[in-house]
Amino acid sequence: MLGVLGGMGPMAGAAFALRLAALTPVGRDQEHIPTLLLNDPRIPDRSMARVAGGEDPLPYMRAGIEFLNDSGADLIAIPCNTAHLWYDELAQAANCPVLHIIEAVVADLRRQGLTSGRIGLMGTAATLALGLYQRTLERYGYECILPADDEVESLCMASIRAVKANQREASLEPALDCVQRLRARGAQAVVLGCTELPLAIPHALRSGLGVVVTDSIDALALAVIAFYQEHGGLPGAIKANGQLPQELAAA
Amino acid sequence: MLGVLGGMGPMAGAAFALRLAALTPVGRDQEHIPTLLLNDPRIPDRSMARVAGGEDPLPYMRAGIEFLNDSGADLIAIPCNTAHLWYDELAQAANCPVLHIIEAVVADLRRQGLTSGRIGLMGTAATLALGLYQRTLERYGYECILPADDEVESLCMASIRAVKANQREASLEPALDCVQRLRARGAQAVVLGCTELPLAIPHALRSGLGVVVTDSIDALALAVIAFYQEHGGLPGAIKANGQLPQELAAA
Repeated sequence: MLGVLGGMGPMAGAAFALRLAALTPVGRDQEHIPTLLLNDPRIPDRSMARVAGGEDPLPYMRAGIEFLNDSGADLIAIPCNTAHLWYDELAQAANCPVLHIIEAVVADLRRQGLTSGRIGLMGTAATLALGLYQRTLERYGYECILPADDEVESLCMASIRAVKANQREASLEPALDCVQRLRARGAQAVVLGCTELPLAIPHALRSGLGVVVTDSIDALALAVIAFYQEHGGLPGAIKANGQLPQELAAA
Repeated sequence: MLGVLGGMGPMAGAAFALRLAALTPVGRDQEHIPTLLLNDPRIPDRSMARVAGGEDPLPYMRAGIEFLNDSGADLIAIPCNTAHLWYDELAQAANCPVLHIIEAVVADLRRQGLTSGRIGLMGTAATLALGLYQRTLERYGYECILPADDEVESLCMASIRAVKANQREASLEPALDCVQRLRARGAQAVVLGCTELPLAIPHALRSGLGVVVTDSIDALALAVIAFYQEHGGLPGAIKANGQLPQELAAA
């Protein structure tokens, strides 16, 4: 059973479970991946802890991992980018493998044909300031383009806060503006590197943006599916050319 | 903490968690309802058990309820209409209240201003044949309009199976056709009385259908929110006129 440490935020946790179901190549209910989603939003804010001296979320996240251990999880996914600032501690607390969302995004970039080049990053101020993506992307040979500090606040964080406050309509414009600015500066792909951002920009709009978009929710879901396929737990397969079958890509 | 017995199907379980987050009146992550979603799709098919002698799902569902008990659930929701054919047994196994999806749909009809009149029903063959909705709706003074047996198969079940097989595009037309046929026969509202059906007909299309649509996923989510509001567990409130605030209604 897949264990999901969600709640960061709860919309993103639920959207992850939904996209996991939508992207899994199945013919009926019983072929899906059994999943336990702990969608507990009481975990203190990850960004506030790292950039503003807020309460430490680690004890809460660790308690969540222990709950998933006790519930029989054989793989854990954490649909929150900023939480991966504590990845080592969380992986150590787990009794099973914990997927890394940044590695999942790199796999998705490669799946979409980008093995090098300039990648625009969007995410929380903490994720960007602490280099969570930059270290990994540079190790794989990518070059990172970041929004300016004021853009992180007025575009990325504004969009993320709107999603967290259930103001989905208000979340779209700042997120799109940021994608377009990163594209104008030469980004060949833009990473929606906070799990609220895929909720701000609906899938249907993305093909018209003129730039590859990689979505950290979908990337993590595809990493889960790939894991179970490699371990014999799923009948289907993502097509060898890296494309999803047509009917799944539209989901 | 809310416990959710999902997996029937897994897309519906995840969509329920997503709509619950989207409909909850909050300003930030930490105000959402802590939720544990057991999204285990291995539960044998509910319809097959009731109409075709398939394996009994009750022991699997009861084990799920016991898991939610042990995990500290103080309220349980089951986002599957057909599973409510076993409601009494499941409520008995629970250590906390279990919301009834049919009662939630009635509350939603009343919230939308319909306190009497003709209601068109869509659902699985088992749900409709065993009168799950009819008994309750008639008790509240509504009159039920059902699809003919061949329409249940060619429209309702075709749409439900397409959602379960991740063929969302194929699920739309039969579901819309059924809504329009029920409307033409005088239905003032149509119940999407299987939790796959709200996934077949996107929210954005519903206002153009010329008939009130009540969605058993949203209705159950609103019943959860109302429960926590009545018990002091949530700060906000659904507006007194039964409308959601504008920004939530668009979610």
